[in-house]
Amino acid sequence: MIIVLKNGVGRTEAGVLAAELEKQGVTVDFSEGANQIVLGLVGDTTVINDEVVRANRLVEKVMRVQEPYKRANRKFHPKDTIFELPGADGKKIRIGGDSFVVIAGPCSVESREQISSIAADVKKSGAAFLRGGAFKPRTSPYSFQGMGGHGLDLLLEAKKETGLPIVTELMETSQLELFEEVDVIQVGARNMQNFALLKVLGRCRKPILLKRGMACTMTELLMAAEYIMAGGNDRIILCERGVRGFDNYARNILDLAVIPALKQKSHLPVIVDPSHATGLAWMVPAMAKAAIAAGADGIIVEVHNNPERALCDGEQSITPDAFSDLMETLRKYAALEGKVI
Amino acid sequence: MIIVLKNGVGRTEAGVLAAELEKQGVTVDFSEGANQIVLGLVGDTTVINDEVVRANRLVEKVMRVQEPYKRANRKFHPKDTIFELPGADGKKIRIGGDSFVVIAGPCSVESREQISSIAADVKKSGAAFLRGGAFKPRTSPYSFQGMGGHGLDLLLEAKKETGLPIVTELMETSQLELFEEVDVIQVGARNMQNFALLKVLGRCRKPILLKRGMACTMTELLMAAEYIMAGGNDRIILCERGVRGFDNYARNILDLAVIPALKQKSHLPVIVDPSHATGLAWMVPAMAKAAIAAGADGIIVEVHNNPERALCDGEQSITPDAFSDLMETLRKYAALEGKVI
Amino acid sequence: MIIVLKNGVGRTEAGVLAAELEKQGVTVDFSEGANQIVLGLVGDTTVINDEVVRANRLVEKVMRVQEPYKRANRKFHPKDTIFELPGADGKKIRIGGDSFVVIAGPCSVESREQISSIAADVKKSGAAFLRGGAFKPRTSPYSFQGMGGHGLDLLLEAKKETGLPIVTELMETSQLELFEEVDVIQVGARNMQNFALLKVLGRCRKPILLKRGMACTMTELLMAAEYIMAGGNDRIILCERGVRGFDNYARNILDLAVIPALKQKSHLPVIVDPSHATGLAWMVPAMAKAAIAAGADGIIVEVHNNPERALCDGEQSITPDAFSDLMETLRKYAALEGKVI
Amino acid sequence: MIIVLKNGVGRTEAGVLAAELEKQGVTVDFSEGANQIVLGLVGDTTVINDEVVRANRLVEKVMRVQEPYKRANRKFHPKDTIFELPGADGKKIRIGGDSFVVIAGPCSVESREQISSIAADVKKSGAAFLRGGAFKPRTSPYSFQGMGGHGLDLLLEAKKETGLPIVTELMETSQLELFEEVDVIQVGARNMQNFALLKVLGRCRKPILLKRGMACTMTELLMAAEYIMAGGNDRIILCERGVRGFDNYARNILDLAVIPALKQKSHLPVIVDPSHATGLAWMVPAMAKAAIAAGADGIIVEVHNNPERALCDGEQSITPDAFSDLMETLRKYAALEGKVI
Repeated sequence: MIIVLKNGVGRTEAGVLAAELEKQGVTVDFSEGANQIVLGLVGDTTVINDEVVRANRLVEKVMRVQEPYKRANRKFHPKDTIFELPGADGKKIRIGGDSFVVIAGPCSVESREQISSIAADVKKSGAAFLRGGAFKPRTSPYSFQGMGGHGLDLLLEAKKETGLPIVTELMETSQLELFEEVDVIQVGARNMQNFALLKVLGRCRKPILLKRGMACTMTELLMAAEYIMAGGNDRIILCERGVRGFDNYARNILDLAVIPALKQKSHLPVIVDPSHATGLAWMVPAMAKAAIAAGADGIIVEVHNNPERALCDGEQSITPDAFSDLMETLRKYAALEGKVI
Repeated sequence: MIIVLKNGVGRTEAGVLAAELEKQGVTVDFSEGANQIVLGLVGDTTVINDEVVRANRLVEKVMRVQEPYKRANRKFHPKDTIFELPGADGKKIRIGGDSFVVIAGPCSVESREQISSIAADVKKSGAAFLRGGAFKPRTSPYSFQGMGGHGLDLLLEAKKETGLPIVTELMETSQLELFEEVDVIQVGARNMQNFALLKVLGRCRKPILLKRGMACTMTELLMAAEYIMAGGNDRIILCERGVRGFDNYARNILDLAVIPALKQKSHLPVIVDPSHATGLAWMVPAMAKAAIAAGADGIIVEVHNNPERALCDGEQSITPDAFSDLMETLRKYAALEGKVI
Repeated sequence: MIIVLKNGVGRTEAGVLAAELEKQGVTVDFSEGANQIVLGLVGDTTVINDEVVRANRLVEKVMRVQEPYKRANRKFHPKDTIFELPGADGKKIRIGGDSFVVIAGPCSVESREQISSIAADVKKSGAAFLRGGAFKPRTSPYSFQGMGGHGLDLLLEAKKETGLPIVTELMETSQLELFEEVDVIQVGARNMQNFALLKVLGRCRKPILLKRGMACTMTELLMAAEYIMAGGNDRIILCERGVRGFDNYARNILDLAVIPALKQKSHLPVIVDPSHATGLAWMVPAMAKAAIAAGADGIIVEVHNNPERALCDGEQSITPDAFSDLMETLRKYAALEGKVI
Repeated sequence: MIIVLKNGVGRTEAGVLAAELEKQGVTVDFSEGANQIVLGLVGDTTVINDEVVRANRLVEKVMRVQEPYKRANRKFHPKDTIFELPGADGKKIRIGGDSFVVIAGPCSVESREQISSIAADVKKSGAAFLRGGAFKPRTSPYSFQGMGGHGLDLLLEAKKETGLPIVTELMETSQLELFEEVDVIQVGARNMQNFALLKVLGRCRKPILLKRGMACTMTELLMAAEYIMAGGNDRIILCERGVRGFDNYARNILDLAVIPALKQKSHLPVIVDPSHATGLAWMVPAMAKAAIAAGADGIIVEVHNNPERALCDGEQSITPDAFSDLMETLRKYAALEGKVI
């Protein structure tokens, strides 16, 4: 940690501050300029509360050298996190490493027929997971809020029929008991900094698909992962789903450069949601291909058997046929990256 | 609602779509251009799911003429929402209208002495409410998370001592039972779209201070209010606390123009949080004054008896003395706006 | 154009406004709601000044159905713009269509040896164009401002040696006479809305590489192209180079979804600058691959023989060896898209 | 300047880098952590090219302690820049200090009658300067581009009639000769980083009103001012006019907190443009008042005698009557700040 003192703060005052900091277990180096002293803190600076330092009247600026996350940090865990889950037909699904995982399904579960039919279709085309929302976070209280517990039951039926493990979103901790048979719990973008929720998920034993908040930095995403990992759950899949921007040609800006950046800083797998990122079905294939090229470990994509009748997000859903074509194409791109779908 | 059809869609196809829409109770007007038909929907279009319309293969664009919120909408409730709460020393606190309300206190409750002393100080200077966090949303799991239930007890003690009603943040629905004696429940920026939480608050009988999410639009803020109001709770105080921007001279960009915009579109009172907006104590007075000038109905401001020792956000906290001076100044500005502090 | 009138504006007043608009050659359809009238304008609405309409006291909102650009608009020019330029060794360089063009070279020309050596290197690896800055837009007046006219001479020498056509940035119209032998004139992001410059370039007969401004929308980029095309110059290469965002892990957010969006709305070729977009050499390969996958027609990439000694932007420059490897990889990705480098 | 070396870089390698840096006249302090060395540079670090340092393979991060601007920096010029210009009726106009200056007039000059009448009106209400565009930067090549040289003549006639000094925008250096009698030259937001233009203005002897670019940081604004000041021209008025944001309730986000921030970092006067910031006439008064409260030294506001017929930006123009009322109000706010209009 680097602490830049204000212009004119003298060696004596600086010494008092340094002594205080050293009581917290770090050592403090001095770099004395013409009219400004800079302190360099050496040791485990995660114990230092930088807010307290910032609020000190001698201090102009504080800069952290070390990242604020540990368990999610590649420095301390150089090897990629790779984990396996049981998939359809007795196969293992590998997440991370040389595997490219495809999660597909409708925005929300609407009926037994709908989810069953889509599940069968996406399985045939090679999806590893079935997605589908039972509890839906909607910006309007007057929009369809999902089928709730019944939707979850229908998802589990589709799982039984196809063998596809399921990914679905948890909106509040009280729903957790209903998620017993869910395979991967999704945290939505709007809940990425719902710290109460993250803490509870840290104590559960299921993999978490953690979506980046719509204006959250890479560091904030990793800190959200850290919350879960601090509780003991280290099976986390990070998900880039577009951030809020100033243009309106698409719903969000898909930030693909965050993939190599996350890979450098963290060992966690990273997937991309091209459906929510753009909000437009016709853009999904281009962005799915680009995600592979940028180094993603998978995608989560919305597929609906009748997008024009979808109760939510039909505009961004592709049909099972389009999904089948997309999978063909993605296999070629994955091969170039040395990955297997 | 205006529906622009794709280039080349003919009158017949358009007619089928229009007939379907009319089944939902609206009437549809046609405006036929050289190569593009535009449909104008008349009637109660809130029943129309625009996602379904957008996903229709004939449709290029959908534009809502009506706002998606009703209860929060000034069109349907032309008069300002004004409500009263019991304040210190038997006085009534008025929120909205010609009243300018000041909520002050530390970022988090740290000890009995701290909160009592600050409570006494801010009361003396004229604050109407005491604020203080017991449950704190922190970006790092390793930061101080607040004193929890005990912090709440200390807040309530300070309330007993001073008579100041209290405002404090609820982070999850399970905490609600602890909030029995809390006067105003705060929803933090990161929870503005925690819809599960909003629904529960809609059923509670306490005023809600609803902070704008860090990258949420004015409409999204009003839709979050609508969630609460749809549940039957219409005592909501909106709060602008800065939005995320591209610069780093301060923590956020304080968006003061949203005040007149909110006032035009909604009847709800609007306050400003200059402390979180800037993250810098020395900017608080300028932004507090500007908030009044822009038409705010109040401010919520962080005051700490020893900012250099604050366990959180010390850098943005002003001292009780600075707060006292600020109140002097704010009274003059409020007077120009015909408001009373 | 759709004009939503204010609540309560009556049929008579609306009729007067409609009559005025019809004098400008359009016809006006009425859609009359319970308390709001909507006007639909049919015909060539590009003649209508929407600012004047917006300022009308009866008007609440104005929405354009048609795009404001014509010459850059795919609706009026359905076929891709493809053009050819003479390349090295008597070959033709094709821009657009099934060609993927690579423009490579240093941020700025620093010496004869530097530019000659880099030119030879990038040619060997298959670059179609040599880039290099002679006049440099720098945020600090104290930074190296480029070698100016002499730098241009060195670029032209390198062109003579290698046969590579050159791309270089023009910063003001007075420099134009020096650009006689330049093959493609670059307009920098900071000049994308320097309309005086765009007008002059509309009258010149050289292809223009037009970079997207750092916070400009897709429509604004196309309007900047329209400025040039309105002057008669229709050989324009659009360039996405990252937009300003709220995060700081990289210099900008590379907005790859704008590629399919631009391709849908316009017939102009689109390339990507992964060097400026990220500011980090190690991210360039991932983003270059992703650009192809997203549908780009080329890239412009910074290559320096000694990035650690580069006078500008060394951090984002790759070495000739890394460039050679990158070209190998890109050929495989281009092949998947049916494109030839 | 602080240089954080990569993990594992040893003392010997670090020493070589330090020696190289010391050749440039600074001294280098070492702070050696468990696995990371940090270098602290002492002395005049403005001579160090941080891009070169960043590109060094040993370096992880570079952080400047000193601001990159000197002439615009309050550290080196602690006193406010205040300057005077001859105003109407033999009075002096003071810019900066305890003066609040109002610049008013139409977006663009449209006719002799229009500009004369508005000039007389704004003078009567107390404006110090007349504004009006002759050369207009428009996003569409098909929009009214201003009256050009003739518009300038009409502005100068209005100046003769009223005595009001004029402020008008220069779009390219070739127009400079026409600006002989212009009192203050405006640089538009889109030209804030047109460095060729800034350099020329550095050599001219007229005050410059420099508008902040639509996604430019505070530091970039001060660096643009530094360009002009480096040329010898130190009479600069900074102007906040809103930055690009993600919401669309108004045209831009007016960033009023940048006023105290600029005042802390720089000695230059700062004014606000509430008209362009919001794009909505009805928001102008609230934002003008807030600008004073936030510490601005003036405003530039659009006034049009017939906003509904304005050839540009009518929606954001207030009428002369509204301007007169606004001036009444602003005088009271200015008084609270110890300023005189």
